[in-house]
Amino acid sequence: MVGRSKTPWSVLTFLVSVLVTWSMPLWADAQLSAKPIVLHDFIQKRAIALRDRALEESQAYNLVKSVTMEVGPRSAGSSGDKAAVSWALRKFKELGFTNIRAEPVTVPHWDRGTTVMEILSPYPQRLVATAIGGSIGTAEAGIEAPVLAVSTLDELKALSESAATGKIVYINERMERTRDATGYIAAVQKRGFGPSEAAKKGAVALVIRSAGTSTDRFAHTGAKKKLPEIRSIPSVALANADADILDAQLASGKTVSLRIRMTARHLPDELSANVIGEIRGRERPDEIVLLGAHLDSWDLGTGALDDGAGIAIVMEAAHLIGQMRPRPQRTIRVVLYANEEFGLSGAYEYADKYAESLIDHVLALEADLGADPVFLLESRVAENALPQVNAMYALLQPLGIELGGNSAFGGADISTIRDQGVPVLGPRQDTSRYFDYHHTLNDTLDKVNHKGIRQNTAVYAVLAYLAAEIDEGFGRIPIVESATE
Amino acid sequence: MVGRSKTPWSVLTFLVSVLVTWSMPLWADAQLSAKPIVLHDFIQKRAIALRDRALEESQAYNLVKSVTMEVGPRSAGSSGDKAAVSWALRKFKELGFTNIRAEPVTVPHWDRGTTVMEILSPYPQRLVATAIGGSIGTAEAGIEAPVLAVSTLDELKALSESAATGKIVYINERMERTRDATGYIAAVQKRGFGPSEAAKKGAVALVIRSAGTSTDRFAHTGAKKKLPEIRSIPSVALANADADILDAQLASGKTVSLRIRMTARHLPDELSANVIGEIRGRERPDEIVLLGAHLDSWDLGTGALDDGAGIAIVMEAAHLIGQMRPRPQRTIRVVLYANEEFGLSGAYEYADKYAESLIDHVLALEADLGADPVFLLESRVAENALPQVNAMYALLQPLGIELGGNSAFGGADISTIRDQGVPVLGPRQDTSRYFDYHHTLNDTLDKVNHKGIRQNTAVYAVLAYLAAEIDEGFGRIPIVESATE
Repeated sequence: MVGRSKTPWSVLTFLVSVLVTWSMPLWADAQLSAKPIVLHDFIQKRAIALRDRALEESQAYNLVKSVTMEVGPRSAGSSGDKAAVSWALRKFKELGFTNIRAEPVTVPHWDRGTTVMEILSPYPQRLVATAIGGSIGTAEAGIEAPVLAVSTLDELKALSESAATGKIVYINERMERTRDATGYIAAVQKRGFGPSEAAKKGAVALVIRSAGTSTDRFAHTGAKKKLPEIRSIPSVALANADADILDAQLASGKTVSLRIRMTARHLPDELSANVIGEIRGRERPDEIVLLGAHLDSWDLGTGALDDGAGIAIVMEAAHLIGQMRPRPQRTIRVVLYANEEFGLSGAYEYADKYAESLIDHVLALEADLGADPVFLLESRVAENALPQVNAMYALLQPLGIELGGNSAFGGADISTIRDQGVPVLGPRQDTSRYFDYHHTLNDTLDKVNHKGIRQNTAVYAVLAYLAAEIDEGFGRIPIVESATE
Repeated sequence: MVGRSKTPWSVLTFLVSVLVTWSMPLWADAQLSAKPIVLHDFIQKRAIALRDRALEESQAYNLVKSVTMEVGPRSAGSSGDKAAVSWALRKFKELGFTNIRAEPVTVPHWDRGTTVMEILSPYPQRLVATAIGGSIGTAEAGIEAPVLAVSTLDELKALSESAATGKIVYINERMERTRDATGYIAAVQKRGFGPSEAAKKGAVALVIRSAGTSTDRFAHTGAKKKLPEIRSIPSVALANADADILDAQLASGKTVSLRIRMTARHLPDELSANVIGEIRGRERPDEIVLLGAHLDSWDLGTGALDDGAGIAIVMEAAHLIGQMRPRPQRTIRVVLYANEEFGLSGAYEYADKYAESLIDHVLALEADLGADPVFLLESRVAENALPQVNAMYALLQPLGIELGGNSAFGGADISTIRDQGVPVLGPRQDTSRYFDYHHTLNDTLDKVNHKGIRQNTAVYAVLAYLAAEIDEGFGRIPIVESATE
């Protein structure tokens, strides 16, 4: 049991749980030593009412509509980024949040410019391509070079040192469509590490088949890893349909030459902000349940799924909790992070700024995988806090959700505080369709699933409410050296 | 009966049909006076074998692959157009056609240039838009003006004379998704007539919601009607997702202003060609069964569905017939028309050039609605030739095809000879998905339905074969004054 309990409920819960434990089947190993908890009937009823209200009435869709219409693209450092900060402050106010503030975050400012890519020979054709985030541009005349195609990043790594000298390396690996984003995690390696690996082999540019599942003619952008590079080279992603055209020409056996002209460039840093609003807790206002999403988007689409949906889910979940009387014990803090896409600026800033008070962060949750339904609930909490997760899960099971393990990733933005010991829950959204749109021009409002976003709101609302109400808390998790992603 | 019969089969067919007629139920009125025909057993078996071979082995997909990879975009007058003519000549040769030729056609040359469209207020945002075919460009500074939105072309027509003075007229009507292209026929009116109607009301530019069914962020181009205009104004189509953004801003009740910058322009005419190849008939080589498709495409996509698929279906259908021994009596002529999209140049040229020999054109068929399966067979033949259509249809019924009426459109390219009395058949392809891709950047090979294009090949092959073999022919249909689209 966690030592912060203050209410009589916890005493009752403890006694009941001791009795129940002996009659329960044994679950996972991690749960052997933990005692099940039973939610107080009052809390359970309120959580169910909250869940069902979210399913019926969630206004999350309208929040996505608002941010995509009134702001649209909002990449770090752009004018849209500034408009997004204003929008978030305004919207928190409209929704009755308190302690609303924009906490300054310095962000890098990279400008995509334009990308023009053509096959010069054997069969001239214009291709749909876009710069990989952080790429440099080309000289005005562009780069003209023959293609050296490899099937995987590993194949590129295995080439001899000068194998790609004077060539454009092309990695044509396809991304697999999966429900749980594992397809993306695999596919994105070539985007992250390809530019530096290609440079090592002497390449003049890197081209990848987009890390995306749609066959439509949209190139998927996304950042390359910030790595020590021997040389920075222009790096672009081709739409899947265009990678097919390139593959077909390569399959003809003839030498394929490309021309790439790009005006991508790095500009001076800009000021952005983490925008924060709170639903103040009634008894333990200094204890925080953090709901996170990111305020920035890539510049191509209107950031509807990535991460307008996440913004809307966490804002609306907290907003619905804010309308409950009495409010839960702890404070729900919604953090809309600056610049997730191009380096997690806001996430690092938050972890620094709140380093002293992370001990009061009871739990964190993040929404950043679109608006399709949650199908799995994972956690990363202290092992003796798993009974709390199980008790929370019981209210989500009717939404078609399964219970996963206790090694949740949780999300990129909350990873910086997770790595400092803050427990996280990981509601896993179905990403089967998500990577058709993610990081493309085509990430627009019409792709948001009305029913899915209501289910998501219900899931996040129930989890946040219970986390703010369950006395036992979730303990601490092991601190790790450096934040990932 | 038609008077061209030369073989003994026709005599047998005639006798059998007389006997059968008396025992048949009465069909449609039009068929009351016609006697059913019975296909000679030998012909029927060969047609079934051809059908089944096409279903199994059609190489049509590979032909689409070839034209999209080796040529790609091929709008009238462009370098791609010239490459397409070379491709077609080469491919006809490879496939064993005879009497291969490129017949010169003068085509207009319009260059799309670039289109940049932005909402300036209330919420600035870039929109995905493209020029309507034939539009003029703007001055370099572009046009900035408030939007006057109307729901339909009729609503625009009903406005008073100066209602749109100094404004950008926006027609936001949505296209309905239908299996039979009727949704498109309705939606395309605003593209054809909108530019001249908006100019009449004093507008400085016209914007339409694309005549397309996809919610994806691709603008659908297509030509405006060539009409006497009081003034030519820049005219653009917005992607559906972008029309949604514009609609949402208009719904805010605030004045919405746009900026449009376009470099579209008309260039001098160019020379293109109708490319023709034949499978020579064994007994009546001067009698022609014409299979048509169009060689040009719009410049945005690679012209896979429109009309790479049609090219492939008719070439492969004829190619399969060309491999039969003995060949059918009549000649199968495949005509790949120049410039269908921007004014039917090739279709008019063909009708002129062959005016004297149209009487020898026994039947014409065209493929120009993609690669999804044929679901209906319509005809426009002499009424006393309907028994032939019925007999042909019997072999297609197992492919899930229904029999339609005798007022087929037939297709845009063959309309010029249909209007001169040449009978046509109209196999109707399922267009439920077709208008998601048609006239967009996204019309690429991956959208071609493998199974669907084989079914199409089978349909066109069977119809062409039987039309080349059935003695009775299809008579003549009424001549109309001017060809319609």
